Amino acid sequence: MRTFIKHISQLATLAQGSDTARKKQEMSNLGIIEDGALLLKDGIIEAVGTTEQLRQQYEKELQDAIVFNAAGKLVTPGLVDPHTHIAYGGSREQEFEMRLQGKSYMDIMNAGGGIHATMRMTREATEEQLIEQTTKRLDAFLKHGVTTVEGKSGYGMELETELKQLRVMQKLQQTHAIDLVPTFMGAHAVPAEYKGREDAFVDYIIEEMLPVVATEKLAEFNDVFCEKNVYTPEQSERILVAGKKIGLTPKIHADEIVSYGGAELAAKVGAISAEHLLKVSDEGIRAMAKAGVIACLLPATALYLREQAADGRKMIDEGVAVAISTDCNPGSSPTVSMPLVMNLACISMRLTPAEALTAATFNAACAINRQHLVGSLEVGKQADIVMWHVASYQELQYLFGVNHVQSVWKKGKKVI
Amino acid sequence: MRTFIKHISQLATLAQGSDTARKKQEMSNLGIIEDGALLLKDGIIEAVGTTEQLRQQYEKELQDAIVFNAAGKLVTPGLVDPHTHIAYGGSREQEFEMRLQGKSYMDIMNAGGGIHATMRMTREATEEQLIEQTTKRLDAFLKHGVTTVEGKSGYGMELETELKQLRVMQKLQQTHAIDLVPTFMGAHAVPAEYKGREDAFVDYIIEEMLPVVATEKLAEFNDVFCEKNVYTPEQSERILVAGKKIGLTPKIHADEIVSYGGAELAAKVGAISAEHLLKVSDEGIRAMAKAGVIACLLPATALYLREQAADGRKMIDEGVAVAISTDCNPGSSPTVSMPLVMNLACISMRLTPAEALTAATFNAACAINRQHLVGSLEVGKQADIVMWHVASYQELQYLFGVNHVQSVWKKGKKVI
Repeated sequence: MRTFIKHISQLATLAQGSDTARKKQEMSNLGIIEDGALLLKDGIIEAVGTTEQLRQQYEKELQDAIVFNAAGKLVTPGLVDPHTHIAYGGSREQEFEMRLQGKSYMDIMNAGGGIHATMRMTREATEEQLIEQTTKRLDAFLKHGVTTVEGKSGYGMELETELKQLRVMQKLQQTHAIDLVPTFMGAHAVPAEYKGREDAFVDYIIEEMLPVVATEKLAEFNDVFCEKNVYTPEQSERILVAGKKIGLTPKIHADEIVSYGGAELAAKVGAISAEHLLKVSDEGIRAMAKAGVIACLLPATALYLREQAADGRKMIDEGVAVAISTDCNPGSSPTVSMPLVMNLACISMRLTPAEALTAATFNAACAINRQHLVGSLEVGKQADIVMWHVASYQELQYLFGVNHVQSVWKKGKKVI
Repeated sequence: MRTFIKHISQLATLAQGSDTARKKQEMSNLGIIEDGALLLKDGIIEAVGTTEQLRQQYEKELQDAIVFNAAGKLVTPGLVDPHTHIAYGGSREQEFEMRLQGKSYMDIMNAGGGIHATMRMTREATEEQLIEQTTKRLDAFLKHGVTTVEGKSGYGMELETELKQLRVMQKLQQTHAIDLVPTFMGAHAVPAEYKGREDAFVDYIIEEMLPVVATEKLAEFNDVFCEKNVYTPEQSERILVAGKKIGLTPKIHADEIVSYGGAELAAKVGAISAEHLLKVSDEGIRAMAKAGVIACLLPATALYLREQAADGRKMIDEGVAVAISTDCNPGSSPTVSMPLVMNLACISMRLTPAEALTAATFNAACAINRQHLVGSLEVGKQADIVMWHVASYQELQYLFGVNHVQSVWKKGKKVI
């Protein structure tokens, strides 16, 4: 059975016939078709064009297709979130309230809050409980037009819980409509028991954790929090290089709090992406542009932490391919709204409406190596599609703070 | 026919048995009932209490009631938006894109953009067209849990269009589920034809516009944009005092761009509220606290314009009653999301989750003189109610950027 979506007022295909992350002007080219149409078959896009073209070419095939009329609507690829910490235990809304009631960070830590609270709750949660909690978050992502989500481990910081987080994502990949892309992040923080002995924990990650993750094929990427008072560039490099040797592609949380050489390291080790980058240096930007490292920017996190967002405008102008993400996590960005993240990319980072859409679709797919499957609407790609309750990508970004999703198709099946 | 909403995990009634806007600690008292219940009859709240209490007291009445189970849910009063410019013509997403493409303000003005574009489109729109466009916005407000909306004129700046905007709101009050509260704002900007002759336009407002608005009972409030290079405090005072004499309660757009004495003027003329207040002086805050002027703060506007939000925390600490609003308008805040505004009140203005809910319900109702009807869930008040897809008001603010509305009752009728 085929699905035919016709009379799409603005069909943003994001098609450019290339599989590399988009830079500069390429980010503004949305491959728009007016009065567009999509023909879906067996979860795959069978044809893309104008309504008239497809009507003529597929007259016979259309006879028994399910038909949707998208007059007055924008249609885009399903959004891709390339950076989340989605498989966590518990919730920290009490801590948010305490902070706003004027309690200090130490008060909150003493009351059992902070990242160590999430570590404890993730360690204590059974695999079943983690699946249940993560499923709710994935359901919410889907309602916000997101059809592919990267997820990191990192709330265990000991082997068993790290593996539990990765296995939860592996199982959800089998059962949930959303495609999950797993990243190992043993070096997400320094566990209390290793404070002052960070090198020993780096050894533990390299010797005990990475081999198991690679052997069991539980992750595709290997991420590290390279930051002052967390992991030095040298320690980060050791972890990333060790992972690379056994098939894990490097990612890196870089230059979030201070400028610390994380972007430069990303270029040096051939990372697919560098994350956050609020304090990236000019040298770091140039190194990323040259090496083709994708900047994965997280403006909702900056908002929630009251920080100045990363300078996405500058990075694009300097030739860096930019992707955007929710950073969904319980401490610094408890949200699933990629539509808001697109809005913030425009408002806080000065991306144009077209660039923000590219950053949330094609470039986001590139940041997790899924651009051959998703991120644009081209013949042969997965039929991951969003119909929006607005007429144009300009309206999508302008009418901000609202989830304009009307319908979502995942692998050709209407799920919202 | 009665409606019975039972087993509400957290029923935030906002009831305090008083009709004055809440200050300081009062803003944190949400009148919470656990395992709460509401009984609705003829559009009015007939009873509020625990599920057990209502079951015992209303055994007979409950026999033929429609029953909703709210286990695991937060229930609050319908949100109130006390400051919008909702009845405008056209849309300005092209201008948003131009700005982000690096076009200057003059480029945009030359391309027909800015407030004058909205003036032109509002003047050109028929009453029917304005009703159609405004209805769509009201529908979106309702989906975001808003059941009462204030709306201002001010895109005509000549009598005919100002009256058209007010009549559109008057008609929508008759036909739309949302209650509309109309404000006249002839002094929203300086029309091009009066540039340099502002006093003459003030005369025109006072002599030609205000009497018609009052006679036709088209507005309850009279607002003015008191700002450097717009209207001076003296001009603003003339307009507000003239309106007051014929029954229009003063409101004032104050201290948005520079500190200009707007808050002090609000106190002097007995305004019900002062709006924006990003640059309010300490004297202005003290004057407002003393005179009981409600601060109506608009953090989505600050976000959209990349400004530091008003210091809501300080105002509450200094004894000012704070309300919050979307400022819904096509130029500086094209959003309808009061849930996002509550989130921003916490994130950007340091209100606690409880204070943000009070600011969006009871205090917002006070800012438009509707607290005897809405803004809290008490026996005899309008049954304007929101059930949220979260378990607590803390979660409502913490899980930010998401519209958590599950169901909305307006005057006892389930509309969402």
